[in-house]
Amino acid sequence: MRAYDVILKKRNGHELSKEEIEFMVDGFVKGEVPDYQMAAFLMVIYFKHMNADERYNLTEIMARSGDSIDLSFISGIKVDKHSTGGVGDKTTLVLAPMVASCGLPVAKMSGRGLGHTGGTIDKLEAIPGFKTTLTEAEFKKNVKAHLIAVVGQTANLAPADKKIYALRDVTATVDEISLISSSIMSKKLAAGADAIVLDVKVGSGAFMKDIASATDLARAMVDIGKKHGKAMVALITDMDKPLGYTVGNAIEVEEAIDTLKGNGPTDLETLCVELGAQMLKLGKITESLSSAKEMLKDSIKSGNAIKKMKEMIESQGGNPSVVDDTSLLGVSKNTFELKAWKDGYVTSMDAEGIGIASMKLGAGREKKEDKIDLSVGIRLSKKTGDSVKMGETLCTLYYNSEEKLKAAIEVVKTSYNLSSVRPQKIGIIHGVVE
Amino acid sequence: MRAYDVILKKRNGHELSKEEIEFMVDGFVKGEVPDYQMAAFLMVIYFKHMNADERYNLTEIMARSGDSIDLSFISGIKVDKHSTGGVGDKTTLVLAPMVASCGLPVAKMSGRGLGHTGGTIDKLEAIPGFKTTLTEAEFKKNVKAHLIAVVGQTANLAPADKKIYALRDVTATVDEISLISSSIMSKKLAAGADAIVLDVKVGSGAFMKDIASATDLARAMVDIGKKHGKAMVALITDMDKPLGYTVGNAIEVEEAIDTLKGNGPTDLETLCVELGAQMLKLGKITESLSSAKEMLKDSIKSGNAIKKMKEMIESQGGNPSVVDDTSLLGVSKNTFELKAWKDGYVTSMDAEGIGIASMKLGAGREKKEDKIDLSVGIRLSKKTGDSVKMGETLCTLYYNSEEKLKAAIEVVKTSYNLSSVRPQKIGIIHGVVE
Repeated sequence: MRAYDVILKKRNGHELSKEEIEFMVDGFVKGEVPDYQMAAFLMVIYFKHMNADERYNLTEIMARSGDSIDLSFISGIKVDKHSTGGVGDKTTLVLAPMVASCGLPVAKMSGRGLGHTGGTIDKLEAIPGFKTTLTEAEFKKNVKAHLIAVVGQTANLAPADKKIYALRDVTATVDEISLISSSIMSKKLAAGADAIVLDVKVGSGAFMKDIASATDLARAMVDIGKKHGKAMVALITDMDKPLGYTVGNAIEVEEAIDTLKGNGPTDLETLCVELGAQMLKLGKITESLSSAKEMLKDSIKSGNAIKKMKEMIESQGGNPSVVDDTSLLGVSKNTFELKAWKDGYVTSMDAEGIGIASMKLGAGREKKEDKIDLSVGIRLSKKTGDSVKMGETLCTLYYNSEEKLKAAIEVVKTSYNLSSVRPQKIGIIHGVVE
Repeated sequence: MRAYDVILKKRNGHELSKEEIEFMVDGFVKGEVPDYQMAAFLMVIYFKHMNADERYNLTEIMARSGDSIDLSFISGIKVDKHSTGGVGDKTTLVLAPMVASCGLPVAKMSGRGLGHTGGTIDKLEAIPGFKTTLTEAEFKKNVKAHLIAVVGQTANLAPADKKIYALRDVTATVDEISLISSSIMSKKLAAGADAIVLDVKVGSGAFMKDIASATDLARAMVDIGKKHGKAMVALITDMDKPLGYTVGNAIEVEEAIDTLKGNGPTDLETLCVELGAQMLKLGKITESLSSAKEMLKDSIKSGNAIKKMKEMIESQGGNPSVVDDTSLLGVSKNTFELKAWKDGYVTSMDAEGIGIASMKLGAGREKKEDKIDLSVGIRLSKKTGDSVKMGETLCTLYYNSEEKLKAAIEVVKTSYNLSSVRPQKIGIIHGVVE
């Protein structure tokens, strides 16, 4: 077999066999297929796409290119959750304690990632003392004793995907559904869950800008998972404005804690209840979605959810007092308030712009090597649909550098569209794919 | 500027500026744009193509990436000819002496090239003593004294094209019109002629399999040339069967000599008269195509053309006696005759198959490093349209190795389609693009 012939075959519109995809992926990982042939191959896939069988095979081949996590120490159904990413997405911080407090074990490996803010693992590090690296024994002990542990990805998960993604990132071949779905699902498969709930975000702050393409991506991932014998469900959720009212790291943990106490924003709480209900149902904790939702709402009302958060923080070496005094999270002291320049409504927001502004403040990484400032970020006072009076605060920027503040203000200003048009209210859940 | 953004822009269907194409090509040559980004870029062009301005710019940038040949020592209009290549294409060997004998100076640099047989330069080396490398002084002296010199490409012509072509060759991005046309034209522009006659071949033995795509390619090249101020004309010519009756090296020189003496096959003579007439007209040797054709036919009848061939051979150190005794060319002594397996007609031929058989005999290079056996090849007795009786010779294979002969017979057999269907006679010229 020659890489040239595989590229040519796909380029000319023919379906690739498992052996052909294997030849390309394994060959690339081993250094036998050079990066220029892989780059040409990826661009061919960008234009010609892959069918369900090809996606299944690509996912399978990348999933078994590295370690497989063994979760057999947990009895019952192991349920995982994955978000395609958005601005102000602190869902895991709220959802994990909620579902754990309902009896579903959470053994989660999360990423750091590039982007507007840190990943879940970065955010958790805003909690003084919190250890995001546990030994395997500690991890297992915590999941057994507390039903919850959230740690960084230390294992060698799907290295083929990692290597291919790095090439996609520099060759303009990231945004293609076969490649996105197989990339995400290869890591999920290697992570060892039996059931996976996907949160596919759509809108100005998401990778997928319209519901049709978000649904296509959800369908692709659900189908790949099912073909691998996993129970799957995907929610299509709104990311046309940031999730909740905070974008950053410490500031997002604060909002997560508020939400677990019942004082959070509606969109975030609703999203966590909806995702959590799917998890509890897939995990057979309860039969129906409606009873699952009741359980989750109760976990907040009863205080069980915030108690579980405290328990997790303590079990991973963090200071549990942050739950009662969020000022311990260390949000920066310097603030700048962006004021509305006219009366009217927030007609729309460029959620991505808010994310970029947050990154410019130092809350996210532009390059892998960048260090995150956990204390900075943006607190929104107004979001799409809210009415504003001239001079009212639209949002508050938490900063540590005047220079970075300036760059952030530039972007955040143009991310608010104020006009006399009151937009329709849009719910957080756009659809379900299962 | 970043390579990523240029790839993305073109991928999304936008026109590239000259600066953007320059950034990619010059960057690639300098090693600043890595081969994997260039490979992705080339695949984008394969799918999205380039418009006339982009092609013009790409050609220009590649043309000036190396040396430019200065032909100003020749007075008057400098006319060049280029063939897109086919099986049994010995046109230059016939055409160059013909037009030179009519008063048009021929200062030609030819290639060796990969393929079914050697290039013009390899073929010329079948003439004992013939030097395909001359000093600049010798080259100029010969063109001035004899109006003819044919040498190998020694100059650093369009190295950007060379480097890009090498990458296209291994990434399945060769067969795209923008890339083909700019590649050919960049070398032609650097070669310094004022006027260029293109021989765009079409059919089973050519790169372009149908007249529509051959015409598109011709149009693209003619337009690029004109935009650069060159006088241009392209003929679309038949390559659905090999040109003439010989495929190889020494054996093709033999047929070229026969043709210059007036004893050649009609298709080859007609093609040379048609191409030559365009050259004489562009070179302002005569006003009309019809008078040019008369001059060229006369050059054969009068013996001036073969005399010019002898003159060229002598002036480049070769043994001019080959013109009178072609056995001096050293065609191999071992022959195998392929016989017709039934009565009927040669309904069609796979010209490329005949070419591959010739390569398998050793007449062409599969890889750059391969050594050519100039003495082997195939002499056709029957071509498309001819009637055959069972047991009659279809073609004769000249060989030096039984093993290679076997491999060649396998291919050559399946390249003849014998049936009771008499195909329509097809002329050698399918069209003119100017």
